[in-house]
Amino acid sequence: MLFMLAIISLLSDQVFLTPVQNNALFQYINDHQSEYIQRLKNWVAIESDSSDPSKRDQVQLMMEMTKDYILKMGGHVEMAEIGEQEYSPGIKLPLPPVILAQIGNDTNKPTVCFYGHMDVQPAKKEDGWKTEPYTLVEENGNLFGRGTSDDKGQILALLHGVESLKKIGLPVNVKFVIEGMEEVGSQGLEKLVEDKKNTFFSDVDYIVVTDTPWLSKKPGITYGARGNCYFYLEVEGARRDLHSGGFGGTVYEAMSDLIYLLGQLADVKGKILIPGIYDDVLPLTEQEKELYKNLEFNLDDLKADTGAKQFLHDTKEEILMYRWRYPSLSIHGIEGAFSGSGTKTVIPAKVIAKFSIRQVPNMNPSVVEKQVTDYLESKFSERKSPNKIKVTMVIGAQPWLANMNDPLYVAAQKAVKKVFNTDADMIRAGGTIPIAKSFEEILGKTVMLLGIGGPEDAPHGQNEKISKHNYIEGTKLYGSFLQEIANAWP
Amino acid sequence: MLFMLAIISLLSDQVFLTPVQNNALFQYINDHQSEYIQRLKNWVAIESDSSDPSKRDQVQLMMEMTKDYILKMGGHVEMAEIGEQEYSPGIKLPLPPVILAQIGNDTNKPTVCFYGHMDVQPAKKEDGWKTEPYTLVEENGNLFGRGTSDDKGQILALLHGVESLKKIGLPVNVKFVIEGMEEVGSQGLEKLVEDKKNTFFSDVDYIVVTDTPWLSKKPGITYGARGNCYFYLEVEGARRDLHSGGFGGTVYEAMSDLIYLLGQLADVKGKILIPGIYDDVLPLTEQEKELYKNLEFNLDDLKADTGAKQFLHDTKEEILMYRWRYPSLSIHGIEGAFSGSGTKTVIPAKVIAKFSIRQVPNMNPSVVEKQVTDYLESKFSERKSPNKIKVTMVIGAQPWLANMNDPLYVAAQKAVKKVFNTDADMIRAGGTIPIAKSFEEILGKTVMLLGIGGPEDAPHGQNEKISKHNYIEGTKLYGSFLQEIANAWP
Repeated sequence: MLFMLAIISLLSDQVFLTPVQNNALFQYINDHQSEYIQRLKNWVAIESDSSDPSKRDQVQLMMEMTKDYILKMGGHVEMAEIGEQEYSPGIKLPLPPVILAQIGNDTNKPTVCFYGHMDVQPAKKEDGWKTEPYTLVEENGNLFGRGTSDDKGQILALLHGVESLKKIGLPVNVKFVIEGMEEVGSQGLEKLVEDKKNTFFSDVDYIVVTDTPWLSKKPGITYGARGNCYFYLEVEGARRDLHSGGFGGTVYEAMSDLIYLLGQLADVKGKILIPGIYDDVLPLTEQEKELYKNLEFNLDDLKADTGAKQFLHDTKEEILMYRWRYPSLSIHGIEGAFSGSGTKTVIPAKVIAKFSIRQVPNMNPSVVEKQVTDYLESKFSERKSPNKIKVTMVIGAQPWLANMNDPLYVAAQKAVKKVFNTDADMIRAGGTIPIAKSFEEILGKTVMLLGIGGPEDAPHGQNEKISKHNYIEGTKLYGSFLQEIANAWP
Repeated sequence: MLFMLAIISLLSDQVFLTPVQNNALFQYINDHQSEYIQRLKNWVAIESDSSDPSKRDQVQLMMEMTKDYILKMGGHVEMAEIGEQEYSPGIKLPLPPVILAQIGNDTNKPTVCFYGHMDVQPAKKEDGWKTEPYTLVEENGNLFGRGTSDDKGQILALLHGVESLKKIGLPVNVKFVIEGMEEVGSQGLEKLVEDKKNTFFSDVDYIVVTDTPWLSKKPGITYGARGNCYFYLEVEGARRDLHSGGFGGTVYEAMSDLIYLLGQLADVKGKILIPGIYDDVLPLTEQEKELYKNLEFNLDDLKADTGAKQFLHDTKEEILMYRWRYPSLSIHGIEGAFSGSGTKTVIPAKVIAKFSIRQVPNMNPSVVEKQVTDYLESKFSERKSPNKIKVTMVIGAQPWLANMNDPLYVAAQKAVKKVFNTDADMIRAGGTIPIAKSFEEILGKTVMLLGIGGPEDAPHGQNEKISKHNYIEGTKLYGSFLQEIANAWP
């Protein structure tokens, strides 16, 4: 293998593991662009929508095609069965297997394990797509189609990057965990990781998740994500819905109590009013503050995207901090009240508000649960309504924060610099990334999110796309990143 | 006609319009009980559910059967066509004709016009009925079946009452307005009343609506109903729904503003906080206060019915006053927010709360509209949110209140006393009764609601019923009432 690589290196007039050698990698990738795009087209054509049980065979087919391609690359593939999905009461559907693959097993080399997925969000032309969602269309430097960014395009860039590197010498061992149920909650995956902790994952040194976008046009490396505590606040009044003509003015209405309690949660500026909620939030350090200054983030773009005329905070830095490193509270809606169009005159008997508080280090969901419950119960008791309330925390997902001085991050930063000639945006996610937290907790390894999706790819929306630039340069990024990991290996 | 009546009177050993003669009426009705129940059984068997387009032919059939019965009684019937219903965009269904019928046309007698309907609410055994809903079942003195109380049973009691009276001498002219679309909004009816104002309705002296329940086991006469001002309060934030992970802590959330504004509408005790809202409410007189004392209304029954442990007010009198003669505000729900089960982490972009304020004399919907709009706009302006609000009053229904000293009411009270040997409950409806208001406004005649449904008949629920007692004694009530009207006629 090394001998072969040397020959290739000589042929391409490059020396292994030098900047010059990268040109061989880059050249190889440049030379295969149309093949890469054609493969993405073939893969986008498979309607692997995991939310639609009638398309489950398409998900299975997509997993088989992925397996075949990794085998063709010279990898070893196990199709790990993860059982059945209880789709609805009494209806079970087979879960697509998870690909556990490996290329290279040199114990002197580091082993990097990548995670990604082959299923996609639903997509129909009539939802407002300009083109057929499952037909790749190239237009103005963009590749449109469902899955181009999330996550087929990113996985293909990774596979192409590894394949290209293999031609000139793969300096690391690579593993892949590729599933087919990510868009509907990754059922069975966490258990698989647990089960394979001491086998497939035993020699893994680093975990890299591909399934992530950048913050700006600059490549981003994600080192943290907020957690989320999701609450149900139930108020029970009458034992049945009542007519507001007959009972308005007679009963303590559940909606009235619920509205009152929801009104106590946060002020107009988004400040959470629950006592103690900010106590465990990590103080901002000067060093961390510096990081935010260099981020490329345009508030006018954000205004255009959201349609908001004004934000809760004024500066780029504050807005990103309140997205990533401070908690926020959102009220999502109310179950059990009248939610249709028109004019129903109901007094709803039992209403359940849904709200959630995004978690940041070092908040602890069980502490938050108690703070929220105590606060709402005390506010309700002051109100002296005869109705009953129940506060339930139905999700308590912890935040995730990696050490960005870890060699994994340093390698990724170097690769970004090499491929894009710019410093990476060091970013976090405002939402949860359960898979990152799971990998970290179960395997005890450093996790990083290194994706190539752009900020405007609309991964769950109409007209999903990836730019051709991101797709091809992203292929180089994955290859270069693996070289940098190898360089840093003791 | 009079000659015939005299013969019948002689045969039955009674004299016309004396208490003794009532015995003839009562005797006749008692003798025909099983026939009345059999006819109700036949009519209940027709699935005249006006909400289900596939059952429109059953509604038509029911109208024909009603017409045939009135013809058999010796009446004159016009089947008034009222056009088509736009069931959904592009789909038109024929509206069942409205029966305009007449029995007697003696210009020396008063003319009483009754309103009722032959369509019913939907009903399926699997909704929780103990018996087949379209099969009349007699059990423990009750007649179970869809339409037994609302409104087939009440109309049949009326028709049987008139028919019985006719046997011994009908002392009034009777007209009937019977429709087949009441349960879905009486489309076309108001226009028909307008159109027939100077023809069919020109000689009508009194309007009586049958479609109404009693407050208690005592017969009730309804002399008023609250109106309703129904509001949409819309808050528009972002231009699309946002993910609370990415945007929580960044944007002014529409739900947060909406919850705040809804929280300003009323206090925990139901007191409406909108300035001026109580200004036009008629003060309570001592005489009116007296009326409430005699009403039979059990708070324990109300607790059992609603499941409420405590009400907004403590006494029977206060509770009924706040149902009938004071305004109340109810929040019905929110359109546009997450209302399903489960845990969606959305920040809804545009949310529309629905709330309504029940109207009482002498509130004026256009004044209320301004009070509500000004108040919400001023509260929102104080809040200093960049989002946009819009307040729209989509229904502005006026309250209805009749003069209960009118001969119509006096006659009904006397009839109640005669048949049931008790004073009538003089009651109002907490909800709107659009038909009462329409008849009053269009025709300028006194309107009264005289029904025979019991308070536990569940007219729109499962196991709808009418008690056999109410059905048979109610037949006597309608007959006696017409005699009393004739007695009072100058």
